[in-house]
Amino acid sequence: MLSEFEIIRRFFTRPAPSAVLGVGDDAALLRVAPGMELAVSTDMLVAGRHFFPDADPGKLGHKALAVNLSDMAAMGAKPRWATLSLALPEADEKWLESFAGGFMALAAAHGVELVGGDTTRGPLNICVQVMGEVPEGQALRRSGAKPGDDVWVSGRLGDAALALAHMQHRIVLEPHDVADCLKALHAPEPRVALGLALRGVAHSAIDVSDGLAADLGHILECSGVAAVVEIAAVPRSAALERHFGEETARQALLAGGDDYELCFTADVDQRSAIEKIGRDTGVAVTCVGRIARGSGLAVTGSDGKPLELRRTGFDHFR
Amino acid sequence: MLSEFEIIRRFFTRPAPSAVLGVGDDAALLRVAPGMELAVSTDMLVAGRHFFPDADPGKLGHKALAVNLSDMAAMGAKPRWATLSLALPEADEKWLESFAGGFMALAAAHGVELVGGDTTRGPLNICVQVMGEVPEGQALRRSGAKPGDDVWVSGRLGDAALALAHMQHRIVLEPHDVADCLKALHAPEPRVALGLALRGVAHSAIDVSDGLAADLGHILECSGVAAVVEIAAVPRSAALERHFGEETARQALLAGGDDYELCFTADVDQRSAIEKIGRDTGVAVTCVGRIARGSGLAVTGSDGKPLELRRTGFDHFR
Repeated sequence: MLSEFEIIRRFFTRPAPSAVLGVGDDAALLRVAPGMELAVSTDMLVAGRHFFPDADPGKLGHKALAVNLSDMAAMGAKPRWATLSLALPEADEKWLESFAGGFMALAAAHGVELVGGDTTRGPLNICVQVMGEVPEGQALRRSGAKPGDDVWVSGRLGDAALALAHMQHRIVLEPHDVADCLKALHAPEPRVALGLALRGVAHSAIDVSDGLAADLGHILECSGVAAVVEIAAVPRSAALERHFGEETARQALLAGGDDYELCFTADVDQRSAIEKIGRDTGVAVTCVGRIARGSGLAVTGSDGKPLELRRTGFDHFR
Repeated sequence: MLSEFEIIRRFFTRPAPSAVLGVGDDAALLRVAPGMELAVSTDMLVAGRHFFPDADPGKLGHKALAVNLSDMAAMGAKPRWATLSLALPEADEKWLESFAGGFMALAAAHGVELVGGDTTRGPLNICVQVMGEVPEGQALRRSGAKPGDDVWVSGRLGDAALALAHMQHRIVLEPHDVADCLKALHAPEPRVALGLALRGVAHSAIDVSDGLAADLGHILECSGVAAVVEIAAVPRSAALERHFGEETARQALLAGGDDYELCFTADVDQRSAIEKIGRDTGVAVTCVGRIARGSGLAVTGSDGKPLELRRTGFDHFR
């Protein structure tokens, strides 16, 4: 049986040249560059709640870090360091190797160093914290949206909800759609490069983890503004069109959750700049609506009339 | 039923004046003072593993933060900010109020601000990360012990093990000992002031969470040195003397775990300085042994002969 220390040494200790001190002491030591603020975000993933207990551990390692990197992207912060706390039912070497592989590959792709953590026995639970840097005063907050701003969304929404429906046998995806949709659910690509490029361009940003309506709703609340989103403009896959009726597709687009795309607002003058950023970072960006004075979110149908919204997002306690 | 957002707002949102941005965005924003390194530590507490599922939630809130502050103390870092991730079987208001009360009271006592976190449904799991500041190059590492150093321990060891034995009905504590021992187990006082005062004085430090033998063992391994500890010198309570035979008391002192005292090493010249630090910070400090060339830990009995050590510490996977 692997010991706690062997687990840490074999699977979770990598060189951390940009840290003053990495794994192996009571705390890691980090030096934040002068003129930079530290952005800190944490997410906990619970088996049976955020993923199926038999989920591919490599994809799980990827996703556990990805959802945190997505928060850095939404702040316009460059992710630098992470800590990982793991509760495991048993020390399964194969599982650990695969999980660490997925986690470390994404970390390496973003230049993120694992500097600390904790390992214990317990029901499978993954708690990741990411720390990044952003120049003082330049973070993309939820509170900066201004009346007249365009509302933008990266990538496309709803595919993760589609994949979940497929896995729960509520729908049957066509073979050529399966891979794309499952990737959206299991291996989302955090939009870090997009977030960095939006510094100084976007007025506000959030990542879409609980569904567009709920997450854009946070921007509206924090900024004290309203928004109108045109449902037909919200980017969706052909699979989503095919597999759901319009009413259900709308729910997937607005309240599907787990998309990890960015929703951001910016001055109308920035349209061509944002389209160029999208091309430069290889991420589709789509203008889906407009910020207005007032409060609350209105979603309009193709006839321009407001739609009635049923469920606005995911809440773990409802 | 309380929503996730109500839980965060009601129980875990407090002013965080020293943070640039606290709870409520995709990430917190912190400014580390110039010339300071950021010390980062995280610990995960699992119901049934680290605490009884019916544990007093107020004490649990205290302990979840205390074990992390203890890591800051062991680095000589001033704790500044924390994040808290919670998986809860249900949104029990009374439990949450009590847990948050214990957590926030200790945070306030140490000037620590809660700047972020995550709340989800799942088997009870508490993951806390603490971030602190330490002047560049002044952190107390495990790797600095030098041959000839004294080995010191703060407070006294073994009481947490005694309390656990009492709760498991393996022993019966006398009424006047119960409170002291249970406090050691449930409400340890992190030795933050002591850790800060030891900057520039101690050569190395660690907190005693897995037992003195295992934790001092980490110092020895990281520093490439050996140590001799005299068992009779290790500070213990009268209750420990009374309730355990010498063999068992020895195990509690060396491998009991959950003590959250500091073990540190320092030049012999620093003895009177360290005793003064102990008086100034109101924490007993006791010299229990000596660092030597070589490797490994020897514990000597009252006859000066090495004792045989059985179990050297707690490992979650063994």
